Amino acid sequence: MTDNSRPARPVMLGQNQYGKAENRVVKITRDGATHHIKDLNVSVSLSGDMDEVHYSGSNANVLPTDTTKNTVFAFAKEHGIDSAEQFGIHLARHFVTSQEPIHRARIRIEEYAWERIEAPAAGSQVTGADEARHSFVRKGQETRLAQITYDGERWEVVSGLKDLVVMNSTDSEFWGYVKDRYTTLPEAYDRILATQVSARWRFNWSDDGQQTPHWEKSYEQTRKHMLQAFAETYSLSLQQTLYQMGSRIIDNRDEIDEVRFSLPNKHHFLVDLEPFGLKNENEVYHAADRPYGLIEATVLREGCEARIPVDLTNL
Amino acid sequence: MTDNSRPARPVMLGQNQYGKAENRVVKITRDGATHHIKDLNVSVSLSGDMDEVHYSGSNANVLPTDTTKNTVFAFAKEHGIDSAEQFGIHLARHFVTSQEPIHRARIRIEEYAWERIEAPAAGSQVTGADEARHSFVRKGQETRLAQITYDGERWEVVSGLKDLVVMNSTDSEFWGYVKDRYTTLPEAYDRILATQVSARWRFNWSDDGQQTPHWEKSYEQTRKHMLQAFAETYSLSLQQTLYQMGSRIIDNRDEIDEVRFSLPNKHHFLVDLEPFGLKNENEVYHAADRPYGLIEATVLREGCEARIPVDLTNL
Amino acid sequence: MTDNSRPARPVMLGQNQYGKAENRVVKITRDGATHHIKDLNVSVSLSGDMDEVHYSGSNANVLPTDTTKNTVFAFAKEHGIDSAEQFGIHLARHFVTSQEPIHRARIRIEEYAWERIEAPAAGSQVTGADEARHSFVRKGQETRLAQITYDGERWEVVSGLKDLVVMNSTDSEFWGYVKDRYTTLPEAYDRILATQVSARWRFNWSDDGQQTPHWEKSYEQTRKHMLQAFAETYSLSLQQTLYQMGSRIIDNRDEIDEVRFSLPNKHHFLVDLEPFGLKNENEVYHAADRPYGLIEATVLREGCEARIPVDLTNL
Amino acid sequence: MTDNSRPARPVMLGQNQYGKAENRVVKITRDGATHHIKDLNVSVSLSGDMDEVHYSGSNANVLPTDTTKNTVFAFAKEHGIDSAEQFGIHLARHFVTSQEPIHRARIRIEEYAWERIEAPAAGSQVTGADEARHSFVRKGQETRLAQITYDGERWEVVSGLKDLVVMNSTDSEFWGYVKDRYTTLPEAYDRILATQVSARWRFNWSDDGQQTPHWEKSYEQTRKHMLQAFAETYSLSLQQTLYQMGSRIIDNRDEIDEVRFSLPNKHHFLVDLEPFGLKNENEVYHAADRPYGLIEATVLREGCEARIPVDLTNL
Repeated sequence: MTDNSRPARPVMLGQNQYGKAENRVVKITRDGATHHIKDLNVSVSLSGDMDEVHYSGSNANVLPTDTTKNTVFAFAKEHGIDSAEQFGIHLARHFVTSQEPIHRARIRIEEYAWERIEAPAAGSQVTGADEARHSFVRKGQETRLAQITYDGERWEVVSGLKDLVVMNSTDSEFWGYVKDRYTTLPEAYDRILATQVSARWRFNWSDDGQQTPHWEKSYEQTRKHMLQAFAETYSLSLQQTLYQMGSRIIDNRDEIDEVRFSLPNKHHFLVDLEPFGLKNENEVYHAADRPYGLIEATVLREGCEARIPVDLTNL
Repeated sequence: MTDNSRPARPVMLGQNQYGKAENRVVKITRDGATHHIKDLNVSVSLSGDMDEVHYSGSNANVLPTDTTKNTVFAFAKEHGIDSAEQFGIHLARHFVTSQEPIHRARIRIEEYAWERIEAPAAGSQVTGADEARHSFVRKGQETRLAQITYDGERWEVVSGLKDLVVMNSTDSEFWGYVKDRYTTLPEAYDRILATQVSARWRFNWSDDGQQTPHWEKSYEQTRKHMLQAFAETYSLSLQQTLYQMGSRIIDNRDEIDEVRFSLPNKHHFLVDLEPFGLKNENEVYHAADRPYGLIEATVLREGCEARIPVDLTNL
Repeated sequence: MTDNSRPARPVMLGQNQYGKAENRVVKITRDGATHHIKDLNVSVSLSGDMDEVHYSGSNANVLPTDTTKNTVFAFAKEHGIDSAEQFGIHLARHFVTSQEPIHRARIRIEEYAWERIEAPAAGSQVTGADEARHSFVRKGQETRLAQITYDGERWEVVSGLKDLVVMNSTDSEFWGYVKDRYTTLPEAYDRILATQVSARWRFNWSDDGQQTPHWEKSYEQTRKHMLQAFAETYSLSLQQTLYQMGSRIIDNRDEIDEVRFSLPNKHHFLVDLEPFGLKNENEVYHAADRPYGLIEATVLREGCEARIPVDLTNL
Repeated sequence: MTDNSRPARPVMLGQNQYGKAENRVVKITRDGATHHIKDLNVSVSLSGDMDEVHYSGSNANVLPTDTTKNTVFAFAKEHGIDSAEQFGIHLARHFVTSQEPIHRARIRIEEYAWERIEAPAAGSQVTGADEARHSFVRKGQETRLAQITYDGERWEVVSGLKDLVVMNSTDSEFWGYVKDRYTTLPEAYDRILATQVSARWRFNWSDDGQQTPHWEKSYEQTRKHMLQAFAETYSLSLQQTLYQMGSRIIDNRDEIDEVRFSLPNKHHFLVDLEPFGLKNENEVYHAADRPYGLIEATVLREGCEARIPVDLTNL
């Protein structure tokens, strides 16, 4: 492990990044007796002049991952958390502008939604309507995602979600496909279509001169369009549904140029009840785990470049 | 492994049960164009004259686990799924009454809730209000639980839920506790109280002569009382909150005699921001994973016997 | 939530327990340059005079869960960790004897095994044989389990393991079973038998006057007998294999009186290759996830009482 | 959703792929009484002329994912499974050469290792030494990975592993790093270094004219070099250890040109025992879950192009 062996070694260092992952920060904002909550999981990833720490172990250019963790918590106080995206922008800018050796910061955030616990009926003897002002139940549906990247000049913001499970119990068919020696699947003219949506969408906001999107409203509207496109599409293939979901977003949200989906086909197989003398008229299904079809694609605005990595949404 | 070695062997068989676990049955009911969905995970467990299959491998008394799976799917057609509890009652009765060697059946069910995808605004050009009639998004909050046990004479129904995450962002204190040599915890006068509720409640319905509870309404009301008790309790300890949650159910739901809780204390630690020259006024918290406090207790109606096993809710 | 409502409320408190769960303690012991490692996940559960903390929130009898955590780490230094069982005995005794309100302590421990990284061949130019003295790779097979309970007089130690996956690729049949209206399963005369062993065994050591078992050797031998019984049993049913595994332990390990198994039948279905003009001669299998058969039973020494709860091994 | 709206819609389809994921195929090979086992999880992903299925739902070019599943099982019979890599090569070649619309196939495989159950001592009265010939216990350590991509001309094979947990209990320091306003971490001169290795390595084999590597031996040797480099490196940073692990592979394995690592720093924090009057001399550690440092980098042979995607090893 002697240093002098290095010059002779024909081994190069490629892309590298480091930071503290999965900082679980919860921010409570008190608006009088009414509290608001932001619940994030923040991962920091920094790149720059980092050859030496790999070659010799010198940490002279290394801001410790522990410090990046501290910064996440301190910034929750100093800047608040208006949105995951805005919080990530504060963090990324800080690391790139305050540390000379750091040339690029990527902040990844998961956000967990909470809703207020329903207050008891007005006539309740136990309490007034106030209690629910600081009482929450985790929504537990999709996990919201944001990835903010900054290189000192340009921004890239990719938002998204995962684990949103949806189902159409009809209006889905699958037929007219290629048949080869290994094909046994019968055609289907009325099937369940269900998937667990993993989606990422890229904003066209990229420099500080442009006005930033309204991140919260954009998320809510994008999610709504995606769900409605899923619900409204009479589907001949999951690919067709995917494309409709993506194009609905591009059509309706000017701030978004590109969407990437990874859609597992959560198979619901019609159970054969004939052996029991019963007829299954699209009523009883077996929800299978593995294997599952997996449909992945990018949908993007004409003239735009695809930049969301194919492997970002790895299952 | 010869049979004749058995008489000499001083080894006994104790409690035993078998069946097919985790049958994922989805039932679609069509009410014209409007569909309804029940999404269950059903586990069957049977006991009875089963010594021989353990001693010699003779399956003469064994209804195959594969058959119990088939029965689950066939019964979804034959009886429908009004509620998880009612479905379990059909299954348990069937196994005990139709198979002479089977003396006891226990059916465990997990239920996953779905809600309809919101229909687009009336003025939408793309579609009418119809689409959402068969389009669903998984609610993704708690998992509902039911356990139905039948021995040919008496019924025991234990319902419940797991993975319901709740938080009060204030109105929780913790002080006045025992201090020993290993105590370092400072007292807290305003802390976050958060937990992931795992609860089981036992119905006093136990024989066919009694009227069965309204299972769906009972679940909805029990959940509501539990959540509101959590929200309304000014808490000096998680034990106190637990007791309030349990007694609120016993007080309000006559059909329930006993409740068992397993409540992990999901610690949210106030982050020390002093080193950065900042003051953390109950704003920024670190949500910790492990270790966690774990508070478990049974709350029951006076005069009733506790029957929910302590280990049923193992984390 | 006024205290005076309590006397009138017909709600009782049943079994209750509390403590800090999942304390991840790693102990390094240095024997010169050679290090040894114990890697545990320790959960503390205490019971006693705890009514008041449930009724009024008074913590006067409550040793904080944070203190139980501190005690785990302090005891790793003060007593070392000879074995999970011995460590649990130290802890349980401490809580019951040092805290008057605490009448019973239950310590649950998971243990993760590590093995040394193989040292490079003697001729290596880079290094001597020393390095592996403090370099480990996690074994990653089963998780070892121990549960120690003490009430001030008697001890109960239940050890065990989970997630040990085993397979016989032949010497398993399944036929001669009951056939009812819902039975479609064909009989099998040569099938794969695979399971993921979850087992708990109870020691007959119960008071301080008796000599304690050699916990480490007992675990190693029990595991070995269990594996060999699995391997050597020509199986007509998984129940038969289970009984052989249990009785092999009872026969060979005098310190153990009772064993409880929870054995999922990890189905490996022979794939039908006929449609492709191929014959599957017990070669190609599909490893299924859900549903799975689940076989559970207690095997115990004649004359002994079964004490391991049926629900301890809940999947 | 009418077709004629498409020409006017400025929405493009980008990269897309589809197939059946997670086919769990187990292959038993019988060499007389001695059986051998291969246990794989195979995911197929196909790309090509697939615009129409996205735009109109026409499946005319779509080989069903169900067929790709059937092909995996059929090929286990037709070609056997010499290695995950070789099996993936058979599959990828088949899809690209047999289906005109398919231009590219990517096969991802997870492999689970099994070892034989130790046969009982020769003197055992119960059995001979034969049993272990078809009895296995899952090794349960790392999961082996392979990804095979073929576009009809060139091959790319990226192998790897995940979930291999390693630890050095000494010979690790961390100091001399950048300190900013948010830095509170004390320097460490003797710490535990532990990580859960996720690694991918790319072979320089790329066309059918070249001789293929010996996949099984290559895996075994690469894993060994990686482990030994981890064990032997006196580490001043996890980045330094990563680089040593990568360069050791490049130096020793001519068939490999590039390695990508994703190494979480599994923090083991020295517990402060001072409050209890105890001194912690690098003996008692708390193994933390989140957050964790995350160190990622590519190491490659001089003159070679980096091709392993940065996001392939997403945690």
